[in-house]
Parts: sequence; structure tokens; C-alpha cells
Amino acid sequence: MSNVSIPKGTRDFGPDVMRKRNYLFAVIRNAFIQYGFEPLETPAMENIETLTGKYGDEGDKLMFRILNNGEILEKAKSSETNNSLIKNVSEKALRYDLTIPFARYVAMNRVTLAFPFRRYQMQAVWRADRPQKGRFREFYQCDADVVGSNSLLNEAELIAVYLDVFKSLNLNVEIRLNNRKILAGLANLIGAAERLTDMTIAIDKLDKIEWSGVKQELEKANFTSEQIAKIEAYLSIKGTWKEQIAQLHTIGLASDEQVAKGIAEFEEVMRLYQSMCGTNDSIVMDLTLARGLNYYTGTIIEVKAKDVAMGSIGGGGRYDDLTGIFGFPNMSGVGISFGLDRIYAVMDELNLFPQEVVSATKALLIQFGGVAEPVCLNTVRQLRMNGIAAEIYPSAEKIKKQMEYANKKQIPFVILIGDTEVAQEKVILKNMQSGDQQLLSLAELIQALKN
Amino acid sequence: MSNVSIPKGTRDFGPDVMRKRNYLFAVIRNAFIQYGFEPLETPAMENIETLTGKYGDEGDKLMFRILNNGEILEKAKSSETNNSLIKNVSEKALRYDLTIPFARYVAMNRVTLAFPFRRYQMQAVWRADRPQKGRFREFYQCDADVVGSNSLLNEAELIAVYLDVFKSLNLNVEIRLNNRKILAGLANLIGAAERLTDMTIAIDKLDKIEWSGVKQELEKANFTSEQIAKIEAYLSIKGTWKEQIAQLHTIGLASDEQVAKGIAEFEEVMRLYQSMCGTNDSIVMDLTLARGLNYYTGTIIEVKAKDVAMGSIGGGGRYDDLTGIFGFPNMSGVGISFGLDRIYAVMDELNLFPQEVVSATKALLIQFGGVAEPVCLNTVRQLRMNGIAAEIYPSAEKIKKQMEYANKKQIPFVILIGDTEVAQEKVILKNMQSGDQQLLSLAELIQALKN
Repeated sequence: MSNVSIPKGTRDFGPDVMRKRNYLFAVIRNAFIQYGFEPLETPAMENIETLTGKYGDEGDKLMFRILNNGEILEKAKSSETNNSLIKNVSEKALRYDLTIPFARYVAMNRVTLAFPFRRYQMQAVWRADRPQKGRFREFYQCDADVVGSNSLLNEAELIAVYLDVFKSLNLNVEIRLNNRKILAGLANLIGAAERLTDMTIAIDKLDKIEWSGVKQELEKANFTSEQIAKIEAYLSIKGTWKEQIAQLHTIGLASDEQVAKGIAEFEEVMRLYQSMCGTNDSIVMDLTLARGLNYYTGTIIEVKAKDVAMGSIGGGGRYDDLTGIFGFPNMSGVGISFGLDRIYAVMDELNLFPQEVVSATKALLIQFGGVAEPVCLNTVRQLRMNGIAAEIYPSAEKIKKQMEYANKKQIPFVILIGDTEVAQEKVILKNMQSGDQQLLSLAELIQALKN
Repeated sequence: MSNVSIPKGTRDFGPDVMRKRNYLFAVIRNAFIQYGFEPLETPAMENIETLTGKYGDEGDKLMFRILNNGEILEKAKSSETNNSLIKNVSEKALRYDLTIPFARYVAMNRVTLAFPFRRYQMQAVWRADRPQKGRFREFYQCDADVVGSNSLLNEAELIAVYLDVFKSLNLNVEIRLNNRKILAGLANLIGAAERLTDMTIAIDKLDKIEWSGVKQELEKANFTSEQIAKIEAYLSIKGTWKEQIAQLHTIGLASDEQVAKGIAEFEEVMRLYQSMCGTNDSIVMDLTLARGLNYYTGTIIEVKAKDVAMGSIGGGGRYDDLTGIFGFPNMSGVGISFGLDRIYAVMDELNLFPQEVVSATKALLIQFGGVAEPVCLNTVRQLRMNGIAAEIYPSAEKIKKQMEYANKKQIPFVILIGDTEVAQEKVILKNMQSGDQQLLSLAELIQALKN
């Protein structure tokens, strides 16, 4: 049994990684709280009927189902099809995202909640996707949503949350903004309203397969060359957001009611953000942004890191009817999501995690035993009571072994208290990086480590 | 589909509950970090062979198994027994506790870890127990363990973690301490060494069924009346820990080598704790403490709340060989666990959660729209940039509706900025509890809310 392993697509997060992840969680949570978002956690498992049919056929297939207790075989013998057997032996599945459980929670608690309801949720989700680089079967989502308000101020505030978080993380980002109504209007104008999803899925791939690839996709989806030419004209629009809006007018797109509405919403979000934060320089209009498979109906948002090649590190948007599927209709919502794994990867690549995240313990007390023991024990206690994370090696092993432990854990200081120091009522503080040693009183030691 | 629900035995944690839970997690995590414990998270699902056989037959039955994708029915038709079918259709199960995944992690990472390895882990576990009051199918465990050190200083430090946490929470507790070697020695002495587990399971019920009940259990387990008399004599020992140890000598139990070793370990833990913290007044010896079903081999620990009737709110102990089952033998470990749900219940009953945990948002800006809008938006921005959690109602609804929102969310202050205030460059700060209003400049407002 020495050949132990974990399920493919899952990960252990050891101390070094966890400290960095906890740092990201703390920064994101802090911003959510600053903006009045309230914490929510939902169970890992939901009833099957809560989840199925919400994520397309693909989603239903990729859900991790929980086996009921009891006699499967009996049920199998009397069961006609695999699907009916699955229903017989499994009534629960693991959460696939945080949005559907959130909608389910809002519908169940509609009477007691204060609307507009602003909630944040940071929990794991599970998908039986084929594991590959950067894609996992268990991963965290960090979402903030407002439900029960049409006001575009919510969009402006969520963009501010993004920019505050990434400023705290020292990560240069650009917010890309578009509006699904502009895309819906485009589909309208070219007589392909019912093929909006085909169109957005194709447009969504522009980053990866360039225009020639998107064109082929559109041809495959039976768009005419005239329609494709208009889509190309739309996707070719460049410039500042004001210039792009001017061009939407010039090429006649803004004559469509939906497009006009999308433009007006876009302008209002920009105005509100500017009014709140003094500038909207970090926000660009990206008419090629589509967020293909999603249920968005208004503003759509994506965050890109500026100093590194990486897909979006966050995204979100407005959806008109979040809770209707659970019998609570006409609740408009808007939300954003932080891509934790990708943010982690970018921060790591750019070396942006602060030094204090690398090791939590500030100092290790080396044990010599004997008369020094009670002094050592009292010293570690005093450090902790002064808010300094400190350890004492649990037994008087060889000093080399204790030093190696400090090195391996990247503890920046060790404290040595031998018989001489006890007699002097002093301690030696050694900086593990520089090798410098200081002879200090307890009060001086606390001061030195508190910085 | 309006009749939505969640699986029985699971819970949604809404904002009010989550804020309190997050407060508990933060206090516990902070203590773990102060003592040099390092964070670990393991996947929700483990391979079946990692988990089965580790928790007894009962545990194997109560595990939530994950269904593999694919054709169950095909496998069912060719399968002979239910058990072999389950193996065919399910290769993973949800984590049942945090100790086995920790042992599995240590065994897998033995080469790179710094030993003694101190880790903390706060994650959900799942058990298909019959749900009942206070027992759930999904619940959190908060564990700290040290592995790879025999030193009893680890025990003393873990007791200090307990007492620090409960002091931070303003919760009066008593640490109950015993040593499994004393119980093993007792079983030895009465010639029932191989029935130690039967004995500890019966003793463990003393709190619930009193001595008469325990006696019946022992009779049922075929202990002789002579053996039972000796167990009764042992369980009748009372007094301070020093008095109890004296009685162990008096009635002849301390003549057993194991008992003597258990007593020596107990005394050493008390000495080390006293030396570190100056007093060991909060620790009592409880010879009736057995922690029946567990794999402990030395010190055993339980925490009881003093001001309320409630079972233990934490427990732990020393186990000689944690990782041997995963091919990495002779690693002694000692750990403690916080019973989060019970601590929550006690804190709630005694009203011990601090006021600032009740509402996170400090102030709500009431929107009147018009010329006040940009002033409002700028004000909420300034508050947030000064670290004050603030909200702005997203649209200029009737003031009554906005006030109701503040009340429902228990936001302690609202800020009103109408045309008059804009002209004066002032804002009105209203205390929602007292009804008091103040006319303040922006700088004064920030000062007032910062406190």
C-alpha cells in the first residue's frame, strides 16, 4: 500500500501553495466585504433535479454523481436502461458551479432575504472533464453577484471590485467590456436572430483561431457570405470606446433598437464608473468579446492580465432571469467571477506574492534542553502573546538538525538560548539569510521581530 | 419546479451564519499560524482504496461514493454481487475525515516535507449518517497535528492552542486529560488486555448512561464481576490530578508498567505546560476519559465548555503510527480537532459573538439621484478607500424602501446626501439604532465611521 495516489484531475495543496492561495482568498474576500457583499456557502452536493438541464447535455454528462447507499444490483436487474438505473441509484451530484446553487438558495429564501441581495461565495466545484494542463476536476470559484436590481451601478461597482483587487495584488489588468444586446442586435440586423448562440460561440474563438478560423466556423454554421461580411465589418471596429461607438453608428448598426440599447447601457456603465472612481482609463470596449456559451443578456465583462500571455483571469455579466428556473421569475442579476488558478499562475510567474506569504513562522527557538528549557518555553510564549508567529523545536536534537528544519521551512530567524545567555538574561537572534547575530533582551527581541 | 430543496443532512450557510462561522475559522486559523502550523488542503474525493478499511465496517458503509461515468447497467448484468458491482462502478469516495487524507499526504510527500511536520486543515467531510439534531452529513473539521516527533512538548503546545483560541472567543473551558497507557495498563492488570477497546467503548459512555449502564455493558461484554469491581475502583478516583495519581499508586494500579508510563507522560505534559504558560489551572485529569473508538496510544484530550451543558467541543490525542498504513511506518503523531458546529452553538447560546460580526457593512448611502448622485458615488468610494465597508443603494428608490434594506441587513449607519447637503458640502450621518443625526464634512464622516 505504499503506492498511494489521488484521483486524476485533483490536487493536494501543500503549505507553500496554500499560503499563497489563502493570500488571494483574503484579498478577494476583503474587497467583497468592502462593497457590502455577504458570504454564502451551499452544500457540496445538490439534489440531481436542481442541477440537471442547467448546463446543457455536456454539463449533465460531466457531473459527478453520488451513489445512494443500498443494493444497486437489485435495482439494476429490474431496470431497463442505463439512464433509468442512474436515476435509481443516484439522487445527488456534486456542485458544478456556484451560480445555480446561488439561484436555488435565493429562490428558497426569497421571503427573508433583503433585496437587492449581494452575495459572495468562494467554494470548490467539480467537473468530470478530461484533465489537462491547467484544467482540473476540482477547482475553486470566487463569485460575487447582485440579484434583484436592474441598476447599472451594480456593473460599475463590480468593475471597481475587480480593479481594487488587482491593484491590491499589484497586477496590471485591463477590463474588457461589451454588451450582449449589441451582439443580439447584430444577429437581428443580418437576419440571424435565432442563431445568436452559433454566432457568439464562433466569435468567442477569435483570440485562438483568428478571423480566418471564425469565418470557416460561420460558413459551417450556414451563415451566408453577406452575413459573414457584416460580422467581419463589426469585428474590425477599432479605437477608443468613443471611436468604436461612433463607428457602430457610421456602419449603420446603431439603427437597430437592441444595438442602440446596448450602446446606451455601455455608456451609462462608463459614466457611473467615472463618476465613482474619477477615471475609467482601465476599461476598454471590446466588441469581439462574446462569452459564447453563457446566459448573459446585457453587460459582459472580462479581465486580462497585461504583462503576461494568459486567457482571461476573470469574467462575468448581466443575466435577466436568474431564478426563474426555480419558480422565482423576473429577478435580474449581474455577477463576476475570479479565476483563482489563473490568477495564482500569473502572480507566481511575475513573482508578485509578497515575501511574508512565503513563510508564516517568523522565528524558531532552538532547544538545548537543561536549564535553558524553561527560558525557551517562556520566550516562545511571550513572542506568541505579542502576535509573533513562533515555533520551538520540540526536543533538544543536534543543532544542525534544528537549523535544517528552519531552513527547510524558510523561517527567517532562529533564536538561540544556551546556558551563557540564560545567565546574562539575553537571547541570540540570528538572521538566517545574512547570518548576522544580535544579543538581545526579551523586550528587544519582541521589538526586533515585531517590525 | 418551485419546490426546491437541498439533500437531507446538508445545510446552506446564509450571511448571518457565515459571518459567525468565518469569525470562528479566523480565530482558530490565527492561533494555528501563531504556533507554526502550516495550511494543507486535500481533494474532496479520494481513491476508494485510500479510505476503505480505515474507519471500521461502519465507516465503509457511511462513505459517500462517487459514480464513475459510463454504462453501469452493462457492468451490473455481468456482476455477481452488489459489492463487486459497487467496485466496478465507483472508484472514488468523499473524504470521511481529515486524518487519513493527512496521513496519505505525509506518506506521499515524505521526501520533501520538513519533519516534525505541523499542519492545520479546515475542510468539510461527508458521512452518510442518519441525520438528526446536531448531526449532519456535511460538516467541517478543524484539525492541527504534528507528525514525526515523540516530544510531549507537542501535547503541551496543542493544549495551549486550545486555551488561546477559547480565550480569544471569551469561552470558559476546561481541558480534560488522560493517557491511553493508563487504560491499557488497567486492562492488563485485570487480565483483559485484548478487550481494551470493549472496555474503552463502555467507559466512554459514562457521561450518558452512568455507572449502572456502563456496568451492564461490561457484563454483556463478559467482563467478570471481579474485573468490573476493579474498573469501578478506577473510575471512582477523584480529586486534583496530584491526588488522583496518588490514589493510582494506593490502589496498586501504578505497579503496572504501562500505567506508570502513562502517569509519567501525564506529569511531563503538565510540567511542560506550566513551564511555558506559568499555570496549568485550566487542565484537569479525567481518568474516565477514554475516547473509545479511536486509535490513540498516549495522551488523550477533550475540551468542555464550562457555562453550558454540551458534550465536548474539541478533542484529540497521540497515535503511535499514523502513516504506517500508507507504507511510511514509525511516525508518531499528536493532534487536536475543534468541533466547529458545537462551538458555534455554545457561542450563540451564550451570546458571545462580537457585535461587529453581526453586520459587515458599516454604512449605506441612500440614493436621491440628480445632482447628489456624483457626490454619493464619490463618498462611497472615499469610505471604501479608507477601509470602511460601505454600500450605496443601486437606484433612487423611495427612501422608505432603502431604509428597510438597511434595517434588514442590520447596517448600523445610513448616510443621506440631498441637494441641500450637496450645496453645503456636508452629509447627514444617521445612527439607525438611536435615530441620532449628525451633519458632517467628508473628513469628519470618515473619522466617525473609522472608530
